[in-house]
Amino acid sequence: MNRQELFEQIQKKSSYLCVGLDTDIEKIPSHLLKEEDPIFAFNKQIIDTTAEYAVAYKPNIAFYEAHGIAGWESLQKTIEYIPEDIFIVADAKRGDIGNTSKMYAKAFFEQMNCDSITVAPYMGEDSVKPFLAFEDKWVILLALTSNAGGKDFQNLELTQGGELYEEVLRKSQEWGTHDQLMYVVGATRAEALINIRQIVPDHFLLVPGVGAQGGSLEEVSKYGMNSTCGLLVNSSRGIIYADDTSNFATVAGEKARELQQQMTDYLNKFL
Amino acid sequence: MNRQELFEQIQKKSSYLCVGLDTDIEKIPSHLLKEEDPIFAFNKQIIDTTAEYAVAYKPNIAFYEAHGIAGWESLQKTIEYIPEDIFIVADAKRGDIGNTSKMYAKAFFEQMNCDSITVAPYMGEDSVKPFLAFEDKWVILLALTSNAGGKDFQNLELTQGGELYEEVLRKSQEWGTHDQLMYVVGATRAEALINIRQIVPDHFLLVPGVGAQGGSLEEVSKYGMNSTCGLLVNSSRGIIYADDTSNFATVAGEKARELQQQMTDYLNKFL
Repeated sequence: MNRQELFEQIQKKSSYLCVGLDTDIEKIPSHLLKEEDPIFAFNKQIIDTTAEYAVAYKPNIAFYEAHGIAGWESLQKTIEYIPEDIFIVADAKRGDIGNTSKMYAKAFFEQMNCDSITVAPYMGEDSVKPFLAFEDKWVILLALTSNAGGKDFQNLELTQGGELYEEVLRKSQEWGTHDQLMYVVGATRAEALINIRQIVPDHFLLVPGVGAQGGSLEEVSKYGMNSTCGLLVNSSRGIIYADDTSNFATVAGEKARELQQQMTDYLNKFL
Repeated sequence: MNRQELFEQIQKKSSYLCVGLDTDIEKIPSHLLKEEDPIFAFNKQIIDTTAEYAVAYKPNIAFYEAHGIAGWESLQKTIEYIPEDIFIVADAKRGDIGNTSKMYAKAFFEQMNCDSITVAPYMGEDSVKPFLAFEDKWVILLALTSNAGGKDFQNLELTQGGELYEEVLRKSQEWGTHDQLMYVVGATRAEALINIRQIVPDHFLLVPGVGAQGGSLEEVSKYGMNSTCGLLVNSSRGIIYADDTSNFATVAGEKARELQQQMTDYLNKFL
């Protein structure tokens, strides 16, 4: 999916919601454990009730890998089940030397027809470039993450000026355009977002941590939105685990709808 | 496998060779393509002829993931086939927020009984710690990588002093001991190794890039070795693709033996 098509979906659904599929066998309603593939059974129902409010799904690859081959099968089925017009983020945080990154790109872009993959920047240009060789596919590069450990390295100050995550934003723009690159930005404070938008005005940002993790959707929207929206805001637990009974999917749909309605307001206000 | 056991294997085999299993369907001898699982068939023969010279195998996970479920099966079979007393490195370069890293740890330490996993440091402490909760399992943290893009961020100078990779070496020692943590160090120059050994005198270093990528084994051994050897030196292509006929495994065994014999000399000289 290219940038124009993504923006069209955002306008059509009046939403920039990404639903995180961090599907954990220990957290899904117990009646699903009787199913042949409980993880896929869960995802299928979640997708059925949230698809009309979401422009993206983000399966968290670790949760599937943890189950070995069976997990990989659940992932494959989930990706195939997601409607064609919804953007898929493989939240895999890969990144390796050139010929190895090329293999990861094949895994997620060819084997599994995802639209994008999250990539860690530590190994630099040749670890990112192979992912950029695929047309209408995206790298979502980690820039500023919202976890506690994010500060350990990302906010280190450089003698050349700025912090490490700012240099990641700057340097990576030499590798690809805003039609190929997005950034993971865990910032929900106005100040940080204003700064980030000065460095990457046109790129899409994937913002995790709104909802269960307490970020403010209004701040993110006000200071992060650009002329093509430029935001995918993720919610995982706040939607998929909002209810743990047989009614879970209906409740997930309601939670997704609540966020979508707030997003409609912010699109009217800030776009 | 714990540090003492690893050192005993190094002494017993008089080797600190790690064989990289970057098994690429496009590079393996064509007669294997008739096999039901060509990748496993290749690895099995490589393991048969190199096991007596190697203390570690390092499957490069991307090469398996690129084949989806079938690749995951080849990986599982390969790991099960590796003899018990050989250290297994899952070269996966994972790293994510706490609950996600925990899932990756489960995938590689429980689902697949690997001894260690390579981890990217960008997300900091809580992305690494969940891997350290497993007894006699190891994190091999990326510090200084030898690819061209390594320089993009790893060598940035910090206002607090030192370069980013040095801060990764320093900071991460607060998270675990040298019985839990190793480092990926692509350095093959004396100067860099002397510096690294001042920061991490007791840790094992995983050194890629000797052989096909042109690093000097003698320099690495002279400046990198510590009192428990402290080195795992990897060779992938120089061993597994040394020959592309039906004789490939025998030639791979000979190449592994050549490296092992050099290592025997260096152990005598520098340990």
